[in-house]
Amino acid sequence: MTGSTDAYSRLFARLGTDQPFGAGESDGKRDAIPAEPPIDMGGGIPDFALLPREDFIAAFADALHGPDANVALTYSDFHGIARLRRRVAAFRDVPESNVLITNGAMNGIFFAVQSLIDPGDVIAVENPTFPYALTIFRNAGARIETIPLEPGGDGIDVEALESRLRQGARYKALYTVPDFQNPTGAVLAGERKLALARLAERYGFTIISDNPYRDLWFEREPDEWPREYRARESGGPVIEIGSFSKVFGPGWRVGWIIADRERIERLAVYRPAVDSQTSGPAQLAVASLLEREGWFEALLTRQRAAYGVKANALYETLVEQFGDDIEVRRPRGGYFLWARLAPRFDPADPSSLKALAARNVRVVPGDVCYPIETGSRTIRLAFSHLPQDLLVQGARRIGEALRGRP
Amino acid sequence: MTGSTDAYSRLFARLGTDQPFGAGESDGKRDAIPAEPPIDMGGGIPDFALLPREDFIAAFADALHGPDANVALTYSDFHGIARLRRRVAAFRDVPESNVLITNGAMNGIFFAVQSLIDPGDVIAVENPTFPYALTIFRNAGARIETIPLEPGGDGIDVEALESRLRQGARYKALYTVPDFQNPTGAVLAGERKLALARLAERYGFTIISDNPYRDLWFEREPDEWPREYRARESGGPVIEIGSFSKVFGPGWRVGWIIADRERIERLAVYRPAVDSQTSGPAQLAVASLLEREGWFEALLTRQRAAYGVKANALYETLVEQFGDDIEVRRPRGGYFLWARLAPRFDPADPSSLKALAARNVRVVPGDVCYPIETGSRTIRLAFSHLPQDLLVQGARRIGEALRGRP
Repeated sequence: MTGSTDAYSRLFARLGTDQPFGAGESDGKRDAIPAEPPIDMGGGIPDFALLPREDFIAAFADALHGPDANVALTYSDFHGIARLRRRVAAFRDVPESNVLITNGAMNGIFFAVQSLIDPGDVIAVENPTFPYALTIFRNAGARIETIPLEPGGDGIDVEALESRLRQGARYKALYTVPDFQNPTGAVLAGERKLALARLAERYGFTIISDNPYRDLWFEREPDEWPREYRARESGGPVIEIGSFSKVFGPGWRVGWIIADRERIERLAVYRPAVDSQTSGPAQLAVASLLEREGWFEALLTRQRAAYGVKANALYETLVEQFGDDIEVRRPRGGYFLWARLAPRFDPADPSSLKALAARNVRVVPGDVCYPIETGSRTIRLAFSHLPQDLLVQGARRIGEALRGRP
Repeated sequence: MTGSTDAYSRLFARLGTDQPFGAGESDGKRDAIPAEPPIDMGGGIPDFALLPREDFIAAFADALHGPDANVALTYSDFHGIARLRRRVAAFRDVPESNVLITNGAMNGIFFAVQSLIDPGDVIAVENPTFPYALTIFRNAGARIETIPLEPGGDGIDVEALESRLRQGARYKALYTVPDFQNPTGAVLAGERKLALARLAERYGFTIISDNPYRDLWFEREPDEWPREYRARESGGPVIEIGSFSKVFGPGWRVGWIIADRERIERLAVYRPAVDSQTSGPAQLAVASLLEREGWFEALLTRQRAAYGVKANALYETLVEQFGDDIEVRRPRGGYFLWARLAPRFDPADPSSLKALAARNVRVVPGDVCYPIETGSRTIRLAFSHLPQDLLVQGARRIGEALRGRP
């Protein structure tokens, strides 16, 4: 069991937090309560107003009533409860036998790694990337190499990767968040997914595709991995990890892995020796919600619209605040906006952090998302959680704090 | 990730099942449905009639209503939701800071092992023991050594262990199910717990105390580990693992680890890289149930009485069937009855298995609970799940099958 000794943990420590993504703070027990709650754009937390609690309550009642109640209350099939597997399979358009239900996406990454990585193996990751995934890789004894993102917001730089592979670099796995990447919001288009999957087959690495945000698109649904590379009988190049966390709330801990059937079967044998299974009432409650005619699609439609409006408000206020001093793209989906500031506004600089704290606003300094310490001058702002007026107010305070306005 | 290549997996395979404890069968999808359902005394599954579903439904509604709903729906403190930690701490009479909430007891064993075991370390286990725990140990690269149980049903043979230690044996950990041991039902009395804890301190090993059955005592509550060895600030010799699985149903996946505070803190840092946390609605629903004045104690009282009656019925019918040909003790708590049969009735013999199958009755051949293959002529029978009349009928069928009656 490794502790917090790696580079990004040290960086978190330097930045005065070991939990920059907001987890662990939600009980509100850890911090002294300031006069006013902070404007917190740190954590990837949903807008609670968009979570249909009454439907959730009805779904738990449904799970624990009727003929399937005992299925929820006893040990489930290690693959997951059949009613939920079936719905996830239909939603993602793969056979049920290629689906394993997990305790959310982090647990999905953990199992993907257990099925794939031996100590000393090399995992290529996007730069920047989701740092909590790195902990899983390091715990498994993997070595990390970084691949740049394409600068236009189109996701991992497939050409740069190919060039490395041609020069002899070899990877056991490539970790990517292909759609609305965490932290940058980048999207890997269909033809680039195809190119990446081809490279994976040609050079013998497996793509760990961590995709919790893909259903929260604002204008256009991202392309899936090409069909011929998905959900094979054995040996497929892509392990697809998904979750209901971003749509139903991360507290549920219900996610999935889609992979070749042979890997799914191995994981179903391995899994009981880690956490047995995902909580049965939660599995069956999610199944019950997905079984309601049109319910899930309607929820997604509402959330896409609401998050899109918030993303735009944050984007526009930041541009207004920083003008030419900010490099930022309008988010196309997900929870986050990513921005790079002009050299004189380093958000990871102690004086900047102090100025942000003084204005009671929280951001994630993008540096924590780079596996190797860097002065990236980037910030990740979650627009998901806060109401629009606070996002606008928060963006203004960031402007004031970093530009040194009164 | 290891597969199913170890001794007891091969044994399960020889016995025609890889899931002798009933897990994975509960969806009813895996087997062809016989004309009549089998009398299944295999799995450690509760009596569904003793699970108060309406209270569970109300608890989920309570969890998702009111001011704490968002605590259930978002990331929780990695130690677990404070309201639940507090209740578990009070129930087990330790400080809240010594409690970590887990996805059930298997997940608790997994985390205990991660916090303790390096490849090559030796874990001493009871012989027989709970075989699924061995998988966790083997996955961590541990070597397994066995310690006999005291033949009188008093749990691990502390004197035999001490004698080994005096002769130079060294263990990193000792895995024990101290109360209503799985599979034998043995109970380690208070003075023997004290002796064991002293040995642990003296010889530098840690006790992994897996105790999911302890609250289901029929006449007398087992003694706790001595206070001076529990829930220290650091370096305590006992890691206590518990679960609500046996009382609320294993599908919930809500359990706990009680250990020294320093270990709990390390686990809270490590845990997000495995499964993030236990499902929030389940955590808060359990907290809500435990907060009801007198509710939990009343449930336990009902279950203790009901399981005690069933255990007696099974015990008496078996004695009636086998007379002097069975070595069996009246269960004092938990879910299981353990029996050793006279040499001519080997329950793991293919002809016995065939005869049991022909009478549509399922048992766990005790051999699967011995880390080293053995002809133990033992059976583990779960009296928890079935109604009394079926237990009696099942015991008669076992008699008929093994004694070769018509």
